[in-house]
This record gives sequence, C-alpha cells and structure tokens, in this order.
Amino acid sequence: MGEFNLIERYFKAPARAMRPNDNVALGIGDDCALLQPTAGMQLAISSDMLVEGRHFFPDVDPFSLGHKALAVNLSDLAACGAKPLAFTLALALPKADEAWLAPFSRGLLALAAEHNCALLGGDTTQGPLNICITVFGEVPKQQALLRSGAKAGDDIYVSGTLGDARLALDAIRGNVSLPAEAFTAAKVRLETPTPRVTLGMALRGIASSAIDVSDGLFGDLGHILKQSQVGAVIDSSVAINLIAYQTINTKTNSQFTLQKQLQYVLSGGDDYELAFTAPASQRNAVQAAALASNTPVTRIGQIEAALGLRLIDHQGKPVNSSFESWDHFQ
Amino acid sequence: MGEFNLIERYFKAPARAMRPNDNVALGIGDDCALLQPTAGMQLAISSDMLVEGRHFFPDVDPFSLGHKALAVNLSDLAACGAKPLAFTLALALPKADEAWLAPFSRGLLALAAEHNCALLGGDTTQGPLNICITVFGEVPKQQALLRSGAKAGDDIYVSGTLGDARLALDAIRGNVSLPAEAFTAAKVRLETPTPRVTLGMALRGIASSAIDVSDGLFGDLGHILKQSQVGAVIDSSVAINLIAYQTINTKTNSQFTLQKQLQYVLSGGDDYELAFTAPASQRNAVQAAALASNTPVTRIGQIEAALGLRLIDHQGKPVNSSFESWDHFQ
Repeated sequence: MGEFNLIERYFKAPARAMRPNDNVALGIGDDCALLQPTAGMQLAISSDMLVEGRHFFPDVDPFSLGHKALAVNLSDLAACGAKPLAFTLALALPKADEAWLAPFSRGLLALAAEHNCALLGGDTTQGPLNICITVFGEVPKQQALLRSGAKAGDDIYVSGTLGDARLALDAIRGNVSLPAEAFTAAKVRLETPTPRVTLGMALRGIASSAIDVSDGLFGDLGHILKQSQVGAVIDSSVAINLIAYQTINTKTNSQFTLQKQLQYVLSGGDDYELAFTAPASQRNAVQAAALASNTPVTRIGQIEAALGLRLIDHQGKPVNSSFESWDHFQ
Repeated sequence: MGEFNLIERYFKAPARAMRPNDNVALGIGDDCALLQPTAGMQLAISSDMLVEGRHFFPDVDPFSLGHKALAVNLSDLAACGAKPLAFTLALALPKADEAWLAPFSRGLLALAAEHNCALLGGDTTQGPLNICITVFGEVPKQQALLRSGAKAGDDIYVSGTLGDARLALDAIRGNVSLPAEAFTAAKVRLETPTPRVTLGMALRGIASSAIDVSDGLFGDLGHILKQSQVGAVIDSSVAINLIAYQTINTKTNSQFTLQKQLQYVLSGGDDYELAFTAPASQRNAVQAAALASNTPVTRIGQIEAALGLRLIDHQGKPVNSSFESWDHFQ
C-alpha cells in the first residue's frame, strides 16, 4: 500500500468522518491547512516528539501509543488553559505496517474526537519510528496560564495522582515487582495518561501559574519557580499520598519505603497532571474548578519569596532529599 | 552540556535576539507559545519531517540542512500565498554535538530571520536524527491559493528551474558525472532551496491554483488536476529548458539525452518551486508578480477539461513518457 493510500485510509478518511470543527477552514489535503481562530482569541501552540526506545517500548500497544502521542500535547494546552482546536501529525515509520497503523490511528483519533481536536494534516515518511505532533488551542487574550505568574503566599496544587507512570516503568523494566492488579492500574497511567484539559480551562482567572508534570514534579515545579522568581515549600506528608499504588499495597511490600514512594511522586515523570498555583483567596474557586472538571486536586504546599524548593514533614521540619528532573542529554 | 543548556544556547538565545514579531504574544519557554494572528486573517499551517538517510545524507553540511529544513516548510506557505509568521522545531539527535548544532541552528535561524519567521518553541530529544518543523503563516480569508481552483483554459506556470536538485543527487550517488562548476550549482539547489514566499504572496487574487514542487512536477501537478477535476497539456519543448544545467553543458555530455533531461524536469523532485495556474486574462498580472518578487516564471502548458496529463512536442504532437512521482512507501 502506497503512502497516499495509507494516509487516506487511516488518517484522512476517519478525520473527515469526525464532528465538524468550526475553526477549521481547510483540513487535510492541500499544501497548508487553514485555521480560523475565534475572534479575540490567541492561538496556543505546542510540539512534542516521541521516539521509539526513549519515550515508549517497541512492543507498546499501538492504540495506547496513538492516545499518548496526542495526550502529551493536549496536556501542554491544558497547562495554558487553552481549548484544543486541531493538530498536525508527522510520522516516520520503518514500514507501512497496517497491523500497527490501524490501531495507532484509532487510539489517536479517539482521543482527538473526545476533544473535538481536528487532524489538519502533516507528513508521513520512512524512517526509525518517530511521532511528532503539533497541537493548536485557543485561549482568550491575557488569560493563558503561564509559568511566570506565581507569587509568594500562593498555594501549590497538583491534579490527580503522581508517580504511578514511573512505577509502571520500573515494573516493566523488572526493577520492582507488583501484584497484577496494581501493575495493570499503573500501566494505564503510563500508557494512556489523561490530559487535564477541562481543569486547565476551568482554572483561567483562578490559577496564577501552571505547568504540566511531564519530567517529574520537582523539576517541572522548578520551572515555575525560576520563571516566577520565587521559591516553594512542599509538605512531603501530603505529597506522599499522591501515588495511587501506595493506597493499594504499601504495608505488605518492603520495596516501597516511604523514601522510594516520595521519589516516585516527586521525580517520577510521565504523569501529565497539572501543577499550578493560586492565591489563598481562591481556595473555594479551585475546589469548584476541580469539581466542575471532575478532576481531583490536592494542595501540597506554598510559594515563598525565598528562592529554592524545600521539602518538609508534617511538623514543618526539613526533609533532606535530592530529586533530579529528567534531562534527555545528561 | 544538558538538554536545557543546549536549547538555550543554540535556539532560545538567538531566537530572542531576532527582530520582534508582532504576532508572537509569547515565545519559547512555557508549555505553549501564544500566537496572535492579525484580525481577519486565517492561519496557514504545514508540517514536514526530515529523516537522515532519506531526506538528506548523514554528512550533509549542517548549516545547509538547517536552511533546508525550514525552507521546505516555507515553500508550503508560499504555495498557499501565506505570509510566514512563526514555526516550531522538534529535533531528535543521536547526541548533543555542538559542532553540528551550532551551524545547524545558524542555517535555520538565518532563513527564519530573512522571513521574520519566529521560532516559537518545540522539543528536543535523543534518537535517530529527525527534524520536524511545523510552520505558521497568515493569509486573508478566501485568498489562500488552493490545489482545487484550476479551470479548463487556465495557463500553467512554474517558477525558477526544475530538475537541478535531482541532478545533484544523481551526481552525489555517482550515477552521473558533472563538471565541478555545474555540480556546485546543482548542489546549491539540492541543499539550499529558495522558498518562493514573495511570489506566492504576489499571486494572491491572480493564480487560480498552486502547489509547491517537492515530489516532481508531474506528480505534484497531478494533485492540482485531481483536486480541480481537470486535465492538462504540457509543452515538453518549453519544459526541457527548465533545467539550469542544460544551458551549461548539454551538447558535450552524452549522458544527457533529451529524454533524461525531461525526466529530471518532470519527475526530479526536491525543487521547491511553485507550480500554479492562472486564467489567460491574468498573463500580464502573472508577469508583474514575477517581476515584483524577482522570481522567474515560465508558462509551460494549459489546463484542459479532459482528465489526464499529456505531454506534447513543439508541434503539438503527443510525447510518450511515464514519469512517476516519489512515494515514500512504494
């Protein structure tokens, strides 16, 4: 099957069958697609590249991979409070394998349909497996959630759970062993993360800053602190409860010391939850946004004027720890 | 050098030093960039992925590669008549090699600066060398040049020269031998193509359809014919003159039969010229657009109601030929 037939069958035809998107003036099939942002809106743009062997295992379920490739991009829109509009897909494939392409495109387009996010076009070529998605959303002028808006005194929140994706990764690599049920649950978090799009949009005008947790909470929160020129204190006794697996099976499993759990939570990565800050005066509004978007939100600490990221125990005493963020070239 | 330092040094710092672009509300450094299209404009979007060994040789000059990676995307904007605004860059690199990154980023950003096209952000990861650029331009509503607008009776034009890039490729592969001067000239066409952005913008309201020639004229013109539901006749005696090398050294070189030359012109690929159609009533306007954009334009044939693509000689007699378009998976 040639390149053009393949694109037609697995991407163009299903994309045409999707719910119409009023912001798409011209979809797949020309030199460019044409997007018409709503008047008064700014376009939020993000791009992510996923490489086999680095971001996913060669034998990963292609349906999940299609989901995740778009999810990590939607997560960036969520972190800005933007509403998804559309995306482009560039795909390098070792060969035109329909047994892979069919489920990959289904996983990708199912999540796209859920967010009415139109596939605008892209590129297909032969090469080592590489998935590059660029996503477009819109957000009212001056309302985008940025990394630079945190102020001393603001509360720090995270959505959902943290650390489960990394736990699954360690289990797949054989570094830890998990009961089947826990492994399955953690693997869902690793392979099909939920982008917090609805929460991000609900936090417009409420959150003072936001970021999505892709490289680990400490590292990503560090970006907020750096760009806002502030510091933070995190309550480890609250944070440690953010890992879902801990509630299932901590006590019977000696692999999971508290320190190890905290490491999963604070520097696990691949979580695609939102970390955000909001003034204390917005606590009710944050809870209302969490409820409205059906997304659990936990308050884990506070922004301070003094630079640096400090971890404390439930009595407020410092906890010594060193949690590195993921860096692809270190 | 870590991922973040590397991005800072070769992409963020030079991007910040570029001429300000009024359409960029927020550049590199957050979860998303924010783009503010001019009121009343549509956003033209295109994405291209370049893979080592397929789109370029491993030993290609990195400065040229940086240029070409953006040029092929700007060429898509040109084909729509869109004005470049900005782009994202996703880059997979085997290692953080500064001797490669420094010239690559210089070549990329030099062309970006020439078009005031802002680097908005993107992604960097480790992996087999892969360059994915998504480019954004703007074009007034209803004025984008599309593939679907050609009408029977329209003239067919191409800009610049065709076939030289493929000639250079054949020379590099050792399939043909060229005098040094001709090889150098052809290699410039292969490695640093000139996107016809100014011409594309000048053709708004004049051209009835357009496409950029990336996979060979016959194949790409075929997309216009298919989407416009028309046919075309091309004068081979005019087309054959489109290859620049022919004017240098045809007669003394027996490798270059007329048939071979025509093959370079009609199915060479990698030309990044514009093929477009316009009503005969617009001949003066087309020449004026060519002059204003300082881009040579040649009229090579005519659109017809009868489907199919026919090649004729200078007497109007059919020329038998079969020129395939490049298909990455066939």
